[in-house]
Amino acid sequence: MTANTDLLARWRQPLIAIAAASLGEDGAHDINHLHRVWANAQALMAASADHGENIAADPLVIMAACYLHDLVNLPKNHPERAGASRLSAAQARVALTAIDFPAQLLDDVAHAVEAHSYSAAIAPRTVEARIVQDADRLDALGAVGLARLFYIAGQMHSALADGIDPLALARPLDDRRYALDHIITKLAKLPALMQTPAGHTLAAQRLERLTDFRADFAKEWLGTT
Amino acid sequence: MTANTDLLARWRQPLIAIAAASLGEDGAHDINHLHRVWANAQALMAASADHGENIAADPLVIMAACYLHDLVNLPKNHPERAGASRLSAAQARVALTAIDFPAQLLDDVAHAVEAHSYSAAIAPRTVEARIVQDADRLDALGAVGLARLFYIAGQMHSALADGIDPLALARPLDDRRYALDHIITKLAKLPALMQTPAGHTLAAQRLERLTDFRADFAKEWLGTT
Repeated sequence: MTANTDLLARWRQPLIAIAAASLGEDGAHDINHLHRVWANAQALMAASADHGENIAADPLVIMAACYLHDLVNLPKNHPERAGASRLSAAQARVALTAIDFPAQLLDDVAHAVEAHSYSAAIAPRTVEARIVQDADRLDALGAVGLARLFYIAGQMHSALADGIDPLALARPLDDRRYALDHIITKLAKLPALMQTPAGHTLAAQRLERLTDFRADFAKEWLGTT
Repeated sequence: MTANTDLLARWRQPLIAIAAASLGEDGAHDINHLHRVWANAQALMAASADHGENIAADPLVIMAACYLHDLVNLPKNHPERAGASRLSAAQARVALTAIDFPAQLLDDVAHAVEAHSYSAAIAPRTVEARIVQDADRLDALGAVGLARLFYIAGQMHSALADGIDPLALARPLDDRRYALDHIITKLAKLPALMQTPAGHTLAAQRLERLTDFRADFAKEWLGTT
């Protein structure tokens, strides 16, 4: 791992510099989100190694994809949203080429970047893409995911929840209008979509916080607590 | 209570109509916030009546102040924020006069509106103002308060938390920059500032959710969970 560690240390700051130049004032997709996705990916790699899986994963590909996966980040309600990860992959190729990143890794980085996106619906073909996808999705769950969910709703000016039916017992779910609905329309689906065993376990744990929160929120919202 | 109930039913819709006309696209201060503050106020009145306190409270004054307290709602980072509740009180007088609301109640409604605000720092002089202030502050706590906190941060484009020191162990708290800091700079102070015994009890319960959340958030954020 020494060679890998040196290589990761060599490339981390240049990758952060590329990512930082693309960031706006979105606190749900800032440099800390990228650091966390990379931290999640490292945890998933370590867990996989413990189980003898994914040992062929190239950490440099994963680190590059983690830091560059949101180079083009369109709002959730933007019509071109589903194409953002392909644009990010294309920009990542250009930026990595400009800093003399190992050319033989570009295809794998670009694939991991384009396949990370939920809305793009591109199946990950490589172990690196599977890990990056899981690592990004884990940041949508748990306490941090909860904060990001409502932060993004504030940016989009959606409502917190339906006034009289927050749990959507008698209406269709609509997460464009109601932030709380997003827990069911998307976040609750993530554990089953996880690509690694460790990602699945972590996602299921972190989802529980969100579903518990949803139940408590509804009781308060309706004045029944 | 029959006369009161009739009177409240008579005035509720006109008050909602006045409030609705002033609302923008802020999901943390929408009509549901006003409904919840009124629901909180009713719960506080009921709890106070159980203990023989606050029995002189006029529910019509309280309902009017609950629905009109945010007529002028400036963002938390607006320089005129501390004056917003006085502007709301002035607008409430005008709007209530226009719908022939009982003139002898205008002073009490206006005082409850102006005294509700944390940043205005006006001491509530009446039982109605104390109940309205508590009712509004309860909506900043608990699961709903947690959602509103990060929603408002998203509107203001602040960061979720400090990247390396989310709990502010070695830096000053700064809730303009970091949403998570707001739990300590303001929300943790609310229980001690509550004006009614029932408000104090509820606020302490609901604060616990926020302080627990903050600890869990920091562990996830730092990758120590």
